[in-house]
Amino acid sequence: MLIVMTPDATEADIRRVTETIESIGYKAHAMPGASRTAIGITGNDGPVDPSPFQELHGVLECVRVTKPYKLVGRDLKHDKSVIRAGAAEIGGVEPAMIAGVCAVESHEQTMLTAEVVAAAGCKWFRGGAFKPRTSPYAFQGLAEEGLKILAEVRDTYGLRIVTEAVDEPSLDLVERYADVIQIGTRNAQNFQLLKRAGQARKPVLLKRGMSSTLEEFLLAAEYVMSEGNYEVILCERGIRTFSSHTRFTPDLSVIPAVHSLSHLPIIYDPSHSTGKRDMVVAMARAAVAAGADGLLVDIHPYPERALCDGPQALLFDMFRELVDEMRGINEVIKRHRA
Amino acid sequence: MLIVMTPDATEADIRRVTETIESIGYKAHAMPGASRTAIGITGNDGPVDPSPFQELHGVLECVRVTKPYKLVGRDLKHDKSVIRAGAAEIGGVEPAMIAGVCAVESHEQTMLTAEVVAAAGCKWFRGGAFKPRTSPYAFQGLAEEGLKILAEVRDTYGLRIVTEAVDEPSLDLVERYADVIQIGTRNAQNFQLLKRAGQARKPVLLKRGMSSTLEEFLLAAEYVMSEGNYEVILCERGIRTFSSHTRFTPDLSVIPAVHSLSHLPIIYDPSHSTGKRDMVVAMARAAVAAGADGLLVDIHPYPERALCDGPQALLFDMFRELVDEMRGINEVIKRHRA
Amino acid sequence: MLIVMTPDATEADIRRVTETIESIGYKAHAMPGASRTAIGITGNDGPVDPSPFQELHGVLECVRVTKPYKLVGRDLKHDKSVIRAGAAEIGGVEPAMIAGVCAVESHEQTMLTAEVVAAAGCKWFRGGAFKPRTSPYAFQGLAEEGLKILAEVRDTYGLRIVTEAVDEPSLDLVERYADVIQIGTRNAQNFQLLKRAGQARKPVLLKRGMSSTLEEFLLAAEYVMSEGNYEVILCERGIRTFSSHTRFTPDLSVIPAVHSLSHLPIIYDPSHSTGKRDMVVAMARAAVAAGADGLLVDIHPYPERALCDGPQALLFDMFRELVDEMRGINEVIKRHRA
Amino acid sequence: MLIVMTPDATEADIRRVTETIESIGYKAHAMPGASRTAIGITGNDGPVDPSPFQELHGVLECVRVTKPYKLVGRDLKHDKSVIRAGAAEIGGVEPAMIAGVCAVESHEQTMLTAEVVAAAGCKWFRGGAFKPRTSPYAFQGLAEEGLKILAEVRDTYGLRIVTEAVDEPSLDLVERYADVIQIGTRNAQNFQLLKRAGQARKPVLLKRGMSSTLEEFLLAAEYVMSEGNYEVILCERGIRTFSSHTRFTPDLSVIPAVHSLSHLPIIYDPSHSTGKRDMVVAMARAAVAAGADGLLVDIHPYPERALCDGPQALLFDMFRELVDEMRGINEVIKRHRA
Repeated sequence: MLIVMTPDATEADIRRVTETIESIGYKAHAMPGASRTAIGITGNDGPVDPSPFQELHGVLECVRVTKPYKLVGRDLKHDKSVIRAGAAEIGGVEPAMIAGVCAVESHEQTMLTAEVVAAAGCKWFRGGAFKPRTSPYAFQGLAEEGLKILAEVRDTYGLRIVTEAVDEPSLDLVERYADVIQIGTRNAQNFQLLKRAGQARKPVLLKRGMSSTLEEFLLAAEYVMSEGNYEVILCERGIRTFSSHTRFTPDLSVIPAVHSLSHLPIIYDPSHSTGKRDMVVAMARAAVAAGADGLLVDIHPYPERALCDGPQALLFDMFRELVDEMRGINEVIKRHRA
Repeated sequence: MLIVMTPDATEADIRRVTETIESIGYKAHAMPGASRTAIGITGNDGPVDPSPFQELHGVLECVRVTKPYKLVGRDLKHDKSVIRAGAAEIGGVEPAMIAGVCAVESHEQTMLTAEVVAAAGCKWFRGGAFKPRTSPYAFQGLAEEGLKILAEVRDTYGLRIVTEAVDEPSLDLVERYADVIQIGTRNAQNFQLLKRAGQARKPVLLKRGMSSTLEEFLLAAEYVMSEGNYEVILCERGIRTFSSHTRFTPDLSVIPAVHSLSHLPIIYDPSHSTGKRDMVVAMARAAVAAGADGLLVDIHPYPERALCDGPQALLFDMFRELVDEMRGINEVIKRHRA
Repeated sequence: MLIVMTPDATEADIRRVTETIESIGYKAHAMPGASRTAIGITGNDGPVDPSPFQELHGVLECVRVTKPYKLVGRDLKHDKSVIRAGAAEIGGVEPAMIAGVCAVESHEQTMLTAEVVAAAGCKWFRGGAFKPRTSPYAFQGLAEEGLKILAEVRDTYGLRIVTEAVDEPSLDLVERYADVIQIGTRNAQNFQLLKRAGQARKPVLLKRGMSSTLEEFLLAAEYVMSEGNYEVILCERGIRTFSSHTRFTPDLSVIPAVHSLSHLPIIYDPSHSTGKRDMVVAMARAAVAAGADGLLVDIHPYPERALCDGPQALLFDMFRELVDEMRGINEVIKRHRA
Repeated sequence: MLIVMTPDATEADIRRVTETIESIGYKAHAMPGASRTAIGITGNDGPVDPSPFQELHGVLECVRVTKPYKLVGRDLKHDKSVIRAGAAEIGGVEPAMIAGVCAVESHEQTMLTAEVVAAAGCKWFRGGAFKPRTSPYAFQGLAEEGLKILAEVRDTYGLRIVTEAVDEPSLDLVERYADVIQIGTRNAQNFQLLKRAGQARKPVLLKRGMSSTLEEFLLAAEYVMSEGNYEVILCERGIRTFSSHTRFTPDLSVIPAVHSLSHLPIIYDPSHSTGKRDMVVAMARAAVAAGADGLLVDIHPYPERALCDGPQALLFDMFRELVDEMRGINEVIKRHRA
């Protein structure tokens, strides 16, 4: 159920609806939009009776939600969501470049990279301190030590930090040190972790599961939002198919598909999907042209020495060129961002 | 590195090798076999120097492991592993029938079903108390209340209990109440949960990720074993493909593939892979003929009223017939079990 | 549209309905069953008006067909179709073993193999004279010379011949020399070739396209049948998925799925789907247990010297054992064949 | 084997090498490049002995080809191939827009559409006269009558014609009426048709099989080229995956992958891959940004009345906007075209 308020509904009107919802034992999710606020109801078993709400002041209409997701949908919130951390934003007119290191390996490697990112005029930095690795014997990240280096990146260069959490304890730490909590593809249906992220007070960057359908992807976001955290950034990172010239097949069609169904921003990770440096640049450009709200890109000062995923990391010069091209392409297509 | 002991090596010989491994800072994993014990080494960065071990008494040879997994492989342990709980076993001469309810919904539904399972001569019971659901608004299981009903099944009918854990707190509970800890397909690469399961003192039933390759599947088991829990049962449950006449495409070829690479038993879940009752029986028979070490099957007293996955639950009569056919097929093919 | 005749309808009744259909410009497809004949109508644009038929003698009812296929469906013909060549059959109570060589390479290799097949009590022989190869530079088969060797196999051992056609000229030759015309997976949607096969006077063994859905598979058979050739044998041969431990993922679930929708028999090719000898036997047994109407198996006197697909060919001893096991498993499950 | 000539080798030098190759019974394929000519050898069984060629005048070196394909590779011809028909080209500095109707349905619909394509400054027209349809009962195209309408489009508007052939007779007709012979995804491994296309005197537009790997895609082109027709345009059109929000998953990563391995141009069909108008524009832009050499796009004067694939056809206004954006994006990225 979705309660749409009139354009001139007051804060008090909205509060009264919210309290009525909660008095019945449901959860209320108020989503302010440019012209009107809508309030989603979750926590119900079966259909909600609209009669307690229809007569309340400021209520325009009560709409039944027929899709399996409620809070991620355009029905509830028509205007696109913009996620902010300080002056940095994702979902606005400019695509966001979130560049950095795949794994934080050392203070030197991380700071060298951050300097390049900042110098290119970017506002976000990515770096993994907790790395989910297919083999138990592979490098698993520097953990809290890595987070401290990332915090120093923010202090030194003003870059906002995106980094992955892999369980509740690491999420606690990431929430403390970073600006955006990343949930990786292997945890895309780890529903307990999604619920915990929904209780966090920081935005969540949610990667698509490598075998998630669009509906499953949106429902993963719904898990986060249903706990009250509405700041979710979706991220395409490639899907599992038979095609073997890339590590994963980048499914860029999910970008316009998300935009038509959801108000959430969606970005693209060309590094992990292709796994090959010479495809990263082409696919990054493609995603921007498709309307992606940003890119999540690995770069590395000396990729041949990387502890993790070196072959996919861009060299610094390739990165600077990509930033320019991203801006150029956005000039051509930006009228479609709405 | 794998240290193979001579057939006449003593307990003391094995202990001395183990202590030498640990004194260098590595982990030792002794795997007794029918004719000899082998000791796996993990925790090393880069190659292990064999010289400290070669001269120890009872050491036959030091073998470099070239596969990405070490403890799951046939190199370390040639004889097939048999997992036991009381008189019930998985991996022996008879395929194990692990039947029960998809979700524990009520005391009555569960006990009615358990009675049928026990009467058919089966020794295991499955039932979900924690259900990972794609939508946050779907029934998520009875939690500890469900586990108590399952414990009553064991007390009343002597059936051994297999049930799923979805995070650390639920794993703690499952370890306390059940006989085998199930990890579901959506957590197949939730490495933190796999490590926690590796510290448990109960066997682990590990479902294949719906997009896991064979190597990733074996490495998930390696995560559990590398923490010291060697009792792992693998379970095929269907993979994500374009084919749409089943919920997931059952990949039965993974059964002989696992048998050739690993000593671990592998069972098959026809219910969740096909999602349709009329295919469950045919595919269950097929898996037994392919050499599966067991089946994990949903049945239900009145499937049309099931809270979860009713269309895939077998009726009681279909189930009894399947048990007979499973035994008949095993008579034909059992000489291949070794 | 489907016209169901009464059980006591005469030949003359059926002929009158058929003539009425053709007089309107449609095609009539009479399918006799155990208890009644049904007559399918194709060639119509849009819905067929039932009124010209309803009053005809012997007409029980006129049924609208809602599925995209008409002639392959159980609605038109409820009893399972049995395809025969002399004393050999596919779709009956016994699963058919169609064994032989992947490619006819020489007279000696083929006759040696045929002798083993006949000695095992099998009635069919397979062998490729026209080989569709991924590379233009790979061995493409002996063409008509190969067909002559196959004809000699039939003359010498009484085995019935299944062999592939790849275009119209080769289909002309195969129709002349062989008993069953095989259409391979790469031509599964070569609709012109399917239509030509539909004009042949020999049964057609139609492999599933490696990326065909069940519906596309059935519609490929419908292409053959709509031209008037109702003797079609379906064949599962593995589908393209991300899973890499087999060449193609065998989708055995298509066996019960076909049986529930269609009257056509369905067999399974374990050799081309797995590509590995040690999996062929396990998967062949599995398919029989799932209810497959037969197997299409590569064997070879000396596989290490094979010109094509040697690693998948069974050794003679493995083959003889498989024939025994196939019969044993069929004893257990044959009551399901109906 | 690949024979690289010196930059100053003469026509006569090249002829002598070619004749020497043919005298041994092989085929010679001379590929002139910007700075030197290379000559590929096919038709050999096993390795070619380089000694007859090494001493010939103008031969720089003899290189063994280790990839399964020879003529499509960058080793043989480093410079990108440009395919031309009159003033129209594919593979040059500007991406080619090949727009038109999915199926030629009528003279009016086709001419109306062609007028819009020509007015937008495009040089190519697409339109299907032979339509491979999944169902035998669907509209299969106007055949030669459709080709005549397409020829009229060329005469009236100067647009060059791309249209599909589905078997040898239709290929004969297409070769006569059109400028480029299209081979569809369902015939991507119809090797007999590929060979026939290789004997044609018109360029071939080869769609990727919906389940073809990159290597299989390139080997399909190799089939055409090995018969002597070197004018091949590759076309990505989406692959079969589990993802269901599009008809097929567009795999744009194949664009940079082809560019790094092959000299052939590669274009993209956003209409058939997505199947949905609102995704066509976004994906078309993306492909251009990824470096595609062109687009193959369905448009329709009144898509709601289309006989085939109406929901994917762009409206005329959307098409004009896309042409502008294609040019704008190309300005940003064209330095990568080389």
